[in-house]
Amino acid sequence: MKTDRQFELECSRRHFLKGAGTAALGAAGITALATSIPGFIKDANAVGASMEKWPWPYVKLDPDKTAEIAYNEWYRVFCGAAVINAVFSQLREKVGEPYKSFPADSFVFLEGGMAGWGTVCGSNAGANIVSNLIIGPRIGGPDCEHGHTIGSDMMDWYSNTPLPTYTPKEPKQKTAIIQTKSESPLCHVSVGKWMDKSGFVLGSAERKDRCARVAASVAHKLVVDLNAWKDATFKPKSTWTPGKTFGITAQQNCAECHPAKVPAPPTARK
Amino acid sequence: MKTDRQFELECSRRHFLKGAGTAALGAAGITALATSIPGFIKDANAVGASMEKWPWPYVKLDPDKTAEIAYNEWYRVFCGAAVINAVFSQLREKVGEPYKSFPADSFVFLEGGMAGWGTVCGSNAGANIVSNLIIGPRIGGPDCEHGHTIGSDMMDWYSNTPLPTYTPKEPKQKTAIIQTKSESPLCHVSVGKWMDKSGFVLGSAERKDRCARVAASVAHKLVVDLNAWKDATFKPKSTWTPGKTFGITAQQNCAECHPAKVPAPPTARK
Repeated sequence: MKTDRQFELECSRRHFLKGAGTAALGAAGITALATSIPGFIKDANAVGASMEKWPWPYVKLDPDKTAEIAYNEWYRVFCGAAVINAVFSQLREKVGEPYKSFPADSFVFLEGGMAGWGTVCGSNAGANIVSNLIIGPRIGGPDCEHGHTIGSDMMDWYSNTPLPTYTPKEPKQKTAIIQTKSESPLCHVSVGKWMDKSGFVLGSAERKDRCARVAASVAHKLVVDLNAWKDATFKPKSTWTPGKTFGITAQQNCAECHPAKVPAPPTARK
Repeated sequence: MKTDRQFELECSRRHFLKGAGTAALGAAGITALATSIPGFIKDANAVGASMEKWPWPYVKLDPDKTAEIAYNEWYRVFCGAAVINAVFSQLREKVGEPYKSFPADSFVFLEGGMAGWGTVCGSNAGANIVSNLIIGPRIGGPDCEHGHTIGSDMMDWYSNTPLPTYTPKEPKQKTAIIQTKSESPLCHVSVGKWMDKSGFVLGSAERKDRCARVAASVAHKLVVDLNAWKDATFKPKSTWTPGKTFGITAQQNCAECHPAKVPAPPTARK
C-alpha cells in the first residue's frame, strides 16, 4: 500500500509530466471506475431512444465560422449551449435530423459551471455533449471510442492552454483580453484565475467577453477534432487517466486544493 | 473594497448559515454572471431546435419506481445517463415524444465527473439536464424558472445530505453502504470522502453500488420535485447564489480548497 508521501510524490511527478504525454490511452483509463458492459449494444434500445444509432451523420465544418457562431451565441445562451449550437446550427442546415430535434437551448444551465456553482466550465461540458452525441458513448463499441476521447482531450487542452485562443472578427470588447491558463476544467478555477490576473469583476463586460471568446476557442478546437475524426486521422493527445493512475476521479492540479498534503485514496479492499 | 480577511469571514459565516436558508432566491442569484436576454423568446428558434417549446408534457411519476430504474440503469450506463433514463424511459411510454427522440445513452460520458475528470457528479448533471429539458432554461421566461432552480436545489441537497439516502429493493451488494456528506457537488470530493470513510477502493463492487444508490437517491428527489412543480407547489429551498454573494461562481466548501486563506475576487472594475 502506498503511503501518503509516496502518493504525493507520484502525483507531483505525474503533474510535471502531464504536458509531455503523447501516448493514446483514450477511454481505457476509466476502466478502474466502471467495467465495460458487453451487453450494451444489444441492450442499447432496452430503454433507449430512437436517436441512439451512432455515429450521427457529420459533414466537416469550418472551424473559424464555428468559432464566430459560438462567440455570438454566448451572448444569447451562454457557454455550454453556445458551443452546442455553434456545431448543431450548421448541421441542422447541412444534414437535418437528428440535429433538428436536439434541444440545445435547454443547456443554458451549463452557465457558470452549472447554474452558477462553478463546477465544470460549460464550454467543456458543451464540447463533451457534442462529441458524444455525434460519435456515441464509449461503451457503444470501438467505433464510438472517440466521442469520449475528444471530450477528454478538450478538458486537457482547456486546462493546459492560455485561454482564450480565439479572437472574434468583430469583438464586442475592443480592449485586449488577457490569456490565463486554468490548470483545471472547472469554471471557478478558470474564471477565478482570469479575474485575479485581469482585475475585472465577474459582472464586467470584459469578463463576459472573455468567456464568450473561451466558448469560441473551444468550439474551434472541437470542429478541428471532429473533422479529423471524420477523416479517420484523429489521435487522442491526453494521457490523463486518474482512475487508473491515482485510484480516484480527479483533475490535474492536486496540490492546488491539497497544498499541505495530497491525500492517498485507499489502495486495497479492506 | 473588501479585504481578503473580510471576504474570508463572510464566506465562513455564509457557509455556517447555508443549512438554515429557506428564502427562495431561485435563478435570481446568477444575474451577476449573465444579464437576462429580453430578446431570447423571439430569437429562440433563430438557430434553435424543434423541441425547444417548454414545458415538455409531463405526467407525475412514482419516486420509488424511478429510483429503482436509476439504480439498475447505473449498471448499464452509469450515473448521469441512469438519472436521465430513470425519468425519460417512463415518459417515453406514458407520453411519447419528445422523450422518444432524446438520446440519453450518449450521456454515459457524465460518469466519473465527466470522462473520469472528477468534476460535477454525473447524477447532479443528469438531474439538471432532466429539469431543464422538461421545464426549460431560465432565460425562456417566468414559466421556465424552475428548470434552473430544481437543478440548483439538487446540487445543494446533494452537498448537504448524507448519501446515499435510497436503498434498493434488491441491492447487488448485501453489505451495508455507509453514508457520507460531500459538502460539494463534485464527483472527486463526493467519491473521495466516501472512499476515505469506508476504506473501499474506486474499483470495488461496494464503491460502484454506492454510486448506483446515489444515482437512485438523486432520481428519487428529482421526481418528488418535478411532481411538486407539476402541482404548482414546488418552492426552491436553496439560497446559494455565489455570483451575487461572493462575486465568483463557486461551490460551498471554500475553506476546503483554500485552507490558509480564501482569496477575495476583485470587487470593482479597475
